[in-house]
Amino acid sequence: MQRSRLACCLMPLQRTYSGQTCSIAAALEIVGERWTMLIIREALLGVHRFDEMQADLGIARNVLQARLETLVGHGILERRRYQERPERYAYHLTEKGLDLWPAVVALMQWGDKHGAVPGGPPVRLEHRGCGGAVDDHLLCVACGAKLGPRDVWAHAADHVPADHPLRRRVLARH
Amino acid sequence: MQRSRLACCLMPLQRTYSGQTCSIAAALEIVGERWTMLIIREALLGVHRFDEMQADLGIARNVLQARLETLVGHGILERRRYQERPERYAYHLTEKGLDLWPAVVALMQWGDKHGAVPGGPPVRLEHRGCGGAVDDHLLCVACGAKLGPRDVWAHAADHVPADHPLRRRVLARH
Repeated sequence: MQRSRLACCLMPLQRTYSGQTCSIAAALEIVGERWTMLIIREALLGVHRFDEMQADLGIARNVLQARLETLVGHGILERRRYQERPERYAYHLTEKGLDLWPAVVALMQWGDKHGAVPGGPPVRLEHRGCGGAVDDHLLCVACGAKLGPRDVWAHAADHVPADHPLRRRVLARH
Repeated sequence: MQRSRLACCLMPLQRTYSGQTCSIAAALEIVGERWTMLIIREALLGVHRFDEMQADLGIARNVLQARLETLVGHGILERRRYQERPERYAYHLTEKGLDLWPAVVALMQWGDKHGAVPGGPPVRLEHRGCGGAVDDHLLCVACGAKLGPRDVWAHAADHVPADHPLRRRVLARH
């Protein structure tokens, strides 16, 4: 039976794309797995080491390892050795990985607006160049610049306590 | 044991947000389920009826029904009766649902660039006002307008055959 291309593109999400012609499905095949977008968020916030990610995410080590291997395999993260004995690696976003920034920010902004997070949005994005906020077109509200992942600081919001790990990490790494 | 807020926000994704302070996790709680973003894509493309969605998605009816009920429950879709006997409903995006457009487009653009869909990107977005393409800041390439979901046509790309359902649906409904 020949299926339409639209039907193909929306068939149960397989691990291969043979016969699929849907870019959203193609993206979700890679980054739609549970935890994956939160791992990418970790890397965007400057958390690169396995143990630190694992502590933040609170997931089983084998699950995190599997997700990291998938992301490295797809060229979204790259491993960099930071210690020899024993060998330890950090995971950094490639250009392909950094290209996910608009999707991550769009989800964050939707969550800020509609996710009803207690206390309000916990993270505030700010243009490094002038301190302006980031609008829903990823433009600087103050100066109008088109922003990318390297142009933006992530700050803990004012309501996040001074001793909160989110504040420490976000401010310490950027 | 008191967990840090960052750890809470990244704990295994529960159905409730109690104690969570992460907007990305909050968004993914609602739209991160398998199929959900593709159902939202259907509605954005103008496919609103259960049977049409089910035919496109090729998933079990009970799975689609469960996802639709979740989305209606979260105020992302609303049901509109279009037939009385037997009762039939169409599912339309609310404003809250339309606010997901940037995330859907960001995933599509990432998939266009990195998803390696055979034949290239199957859908092309175009500013209704002037025919310009949509850039990665959701701006019109031609006139610079800030675009939203109501400002854009979705066209099947040139390589999609004339009798392809994607072409028929996308062009017929907008």
